[in-house]
Amino acid sequence: MTVVERDGRIVIVDVGLMFPTADQLGIDLVLPDFSMLRERADDIEAIVLTHGHEDHAGALPYFLREVGNPPAIYGGLLTISMVRSKLDEHKLKNVPLQELPAGERVQAGPFEIELVHMAHSIPDMRAVALRSDDGVVLITGDYKFDQTPVDGKPADVSRLAELGREGVLCLCGDSTNADRPGVAPSESSVGPALIEAFSRCKGRIIVTSFASNIHRVQQAIDAAAALDRKVALVGRSMRKNFNIASSLEMAHAPSGIMIQPKEIEDFPDEKVVVISTGSQGEPLSALRRMAHNDHRDVQLHSKDTVIFSATPIPGNERAVNETVDHIYRIGASVITAADAPIHASGHGWQEELKLMLNLTKPRHVMPFHGDAKRQRLHAGLAESVGIDPDDIFIGTNGVALDIDGKGAKLTEDFHASMIFVDGVSVGEPDEFAIRDRRKLSDDGLFIVVATISSDDGSQVADPEVIFRGVAMGDDKAEDDLADEIADVVDKTLEEAAKDKVREIDLIQEDLHDDIAEFVWKKLKRRPLVLPVVVEV
Amino acid sequence: MTVVERDGRIVIVDVGLMFPTADQLGIDLVLPDFSMLRERADDIEAIVLTHGHEDHAGALPYFLREVGNPPAIYGGLLTISMVRSKLDEHKLKNVPLQELPAGERVQAGPFEIELVHMAHSIPDMRAVALRSDDGVVLITGDYKFDQTPVDGKPADVSRLAELGREGVLCLCGDSTNADRPGVAPSESSVGPALIEAFSRCKGRIIVTSFASNIHRVQQAIDAAAALDRKVALVGRSMRKNFNIASSLEMAHAPSGIMIQPKEIEDFPDEKVVVISTGSQGEPLSALRRMAHNDHRDVQLHSKDTVIFSATPIPGNERAVNETVDHIYRIGASVITAADAPIHASGHGWQEELKLMLNLTKPRHVMPFHGDAKRQRLHAGLAESVGIDPDDIFIGTNGVALDIDGKGAKLTEDFHASMIFVDGVSVGEPDEFAIRDRRKLSDDGLFIVVATISSDDGSQVADPEVIFRGVAMGDDKAEDDLADEIADVVDKTLEEAAKDKVREIDLIQEDLHDDIAEFVWKKLKRRPLVLPVVVEV
Repeated sequence: MTVVERDGRIVIVDVGLMFPTADQLGIDLVLPDFSMLRERADDIEAIVLTHGHEDHAGALPYFLREVGNPPAIYGGLLTISMVRSKLDEHKLKNVPLQELPAGERVQAGPFEIELVHMAHSIPDMRAVALRSDDGVVLITGDYKFDQTPVDGKPADVSRLAELGREGVLCLCGDSTNADRPGVAPSESSVGPALIEAFSRCKGRIIVTSFASNIHRVQQAIDAAAALDRKVALVGRSMRKNFNIASSLEMAHAPSGIMIQPKEIEDFPDEKVVVISTGSQGEPLSALRRMAHNDHRDVQLHSKDTVIFSATPIPGNERAVNETVDHIYRIGASVITAADAPIHASGHGWQEELKLMLNLTKPRHVMPFHGDAKRQRLHAGLAESVGIDPDDIFIGTNGVALDIDGKGAKLTEDFHASMIFVDGVSVGEPDEFAIRDRRKLSDDGLFIVVATISSDDGSQVADPEVIFRGVAMGDDKAEDDLADEIADVVDKTLEEAAKDKVREIDLIQEDLHDDIAEFVWKKLKRRPLVLPVVVEV
Repeated sequence: MTVVERDGRIVIVDVGLMFPTADQLGIDLVLPDFSMLRERADDIEAIVLTHGHEDHAGALPYFLREVGNPPAIYGGLLTISMVRSKLDEHKLKNVPLQELPAGERVQAGPFEIELVHMAHSIPDMRAVALRSDDGVVLITGDYKFDQTPVDGKPADVSRLAELGREGVLCLCGDSTNADRPGVAPSESSVGPALIEAFSRCKGRIIVTSFASNIHRVQQAIDAAAALDRKVALVGRSMRKNFNIASSLEMAHAPSGIMIQPKEIEDFPDEKVVVISTGSQGEPLSALRRMAHNDHRDVQLHSKDTVIFSATPIPGNERAVNETVDHIYRIGASVITAADAPIHASGHGWQEELKLMLNLTKPRHVMPFHGDAKRQRLHAGLAESVGIDPDDIFIGTNGVALDIDGKGAKLTEDFHASMIFVDGVSVGEPDEFAIRDRRKLSDDGLFIVVATISSDDGSQVADPEVIFRGVAMGDDKAEDDLADEIADVVDKTLEEAAKDKVREIDLIQEDLHDDIAEFVWKKLKRRPLVLPVVVEV
């Protein structure tokens, strides 16, 4: 999410979300921190969406609920259609979504907004130009300069060149593939590779890719048609996105080719292509279920071939490997992008980032998207085409880049980083909760309940000892451990009573320390120890 | 770990361990299940170790403690030296470790044991030939056919050919790189690439690799010498392994080149090479500490270059990426095996696996090591060189391959899979403990303690409500939630008293259900709910 401000008026470009990393235990989603914008809701002129991927538009429902509707939300036609479907699921009505066709201009406070058509792994990708008296701020979104995209609409290089001649004040560009030399393969190179791979398959073919990659799905359908196979779309988002794209005439299935998932078994294996979600090994995805023999409509057979027309997003490697291995255990085969050119990245490589810099001739550059490594490499590419290193800024979430007629500098830190969605709770990262979860997940937990008399601090009931997530092997060992801990409790309480310690907090602290020490000596683990003392 | 048995007598080849996956919460190590062998300790004639890596020798201390000392443990000289150092750390004395030089033969019950020299990413790698009246069982261990290894000792192809002529009954071969066409690059190709990479570095150079890859460390030292830089070894295992290899004259540092870690700051940056542990992004490794600005002796500078002379083991990608990104944030640069040929795998590729099959002409083949995918591909390679598919067996942990003069078949399942090390507890996978940990780590935990009178079931103290790992945002929200849950407890206990329910188990069950329902409605989370009822 990028906030662009001038004269106190705000235009927001993209409202994306992140998925939690493995150590953010129990977190469902990670959102940008909207708190600064909540206070300034009246200053927002518009939201502009570059495209419909989750990392660019996925936090919009949360934004609308927390900050409210802006006067307008603009984007390409597919973007708007996908987002509308998403907002419907969130039961958000009357949201002022509207298509802004590429090349048209609309005023939003001090800015004139214009979308520039780009190519990416989803149709209707748009860079965002925000024009003001000082020039154009150009936010590229995710892009590649695909010269032969599947829909025949390459990135609008001439419009970018015109903006460059007019004067680009700041280019905020995609850094995702800043480490790859050369030019990304065209999306349309995938089609022939799919046909070649399909033609060597004996049984059923299961192709998996991102559901939003409409052109990839189209090419898989075309490959199936070329080899006279029927096609079933499997997975909720696969069916939903294809329906949206079809209704906008961005995707087309030859008549009679599509079959329902439950009809798959009615056709001979060698006559079927299944296009499925699950290319990232997602736990509940259709492909993962197939790999675990747990899908209602598709049971993998030993002659089947699963084609991964996608590469794992960093962090997903293990889940993908696990899915692949389960498929091999069933006896089916797997073809990945390492085996055949059946995938093309949607993000431009080094020569494309340089082309963008040379077309737009920006005064200032801010590398966007990608990790610290790729942003640094993107900065290096900018230097290599002649941008002054002092005009290149690598940002940090929440830190503003202040640009005036004379120059630019990184300034105020708004402390807007991330907020976590944890069930229905949306809030700042709760480090204590996550830390406790990590401790619980490592070593488990001991709870000890002691009941003491309010008269003299003596125990009036046997201590209760409960542990969870502690591996003891067998029931006897567990009972023995509970008995030993009860002895520790007895001893601690006796001493407390003898020393006339009567404050519950202090007694609980003593119990905590004594039990933790005992458990460490006995098990060499440091579980969470929770003593509860009840006074009656 | 492989158990080979004949006439009731046993020889064990390798006793390795695995590291836990991310979802085996809190598990420290994963060992093979020794229980069958515990009962048959007297039948064990010998243990043979192919090499000193953890996945082949790391479980030996646990084996010795559980099953006891076998009559003999054989291996190459470096293997024996590394294992001895490991056993010392475990305070295991009088273990009958002894070198068995390659080519010599020793009798162990019905078997004659012979080691065959192979090349790998650690010196003194040995395949194990177990000869009996029916022929040779050949267990390759991890190997490559490196024609120009750093120590000038290529794999002993002529001895393998002789064994093939004599008659190999069963070949158990490494499948790790069965998916890579061609031949693995030679280890000695890494040296020139390191010199080339070093020569372009301006500041300090930090090379990271596996500490046991003595030849890699040697080549890094030689590259430093060629460019007139000093060398510091950083990380405990890096120093330990280099010392062992030096004392065996398998590694050699030119005189005057080595400096201590604490001397690094005394030399100009462009005169220093640091060789460090941490190539897998391990949490407590030297490199990870450097990346987090937390190493006692090495603070990374912005002109420094970190060279990853290793590739991430599957599953470690995220940790490695994170380390790389932290290094870039400091401003230093990173060179990985994707940027320059500074790493060579220690496992042979497809043409090498085929060469092994053609040299040894086995009657039966059992693909070893590698996941289901790679074992399947290895089986395919065996078919491609003419082995009958019926003579190829893909095994499962705990299932025996029964070979007699006539044929072979997979038979009895001994149910020997894995055991977990969890602190000091070593046992069967405790699914309940892991499941509880997973639940705790996802959604946290609620504990409610109610104290009731043994006379009439009425409450004699206010209920205590404790939650951990539950993100509530602020203290007030937490207090409110605790109050609301206390109300739920009051209501449940009142109803129980009214209905004359007096069994503690039933009351606890009611409390569990009512609180879980309340928490789900309120937070849309399903934490572990632990009600404790104390009767006084």
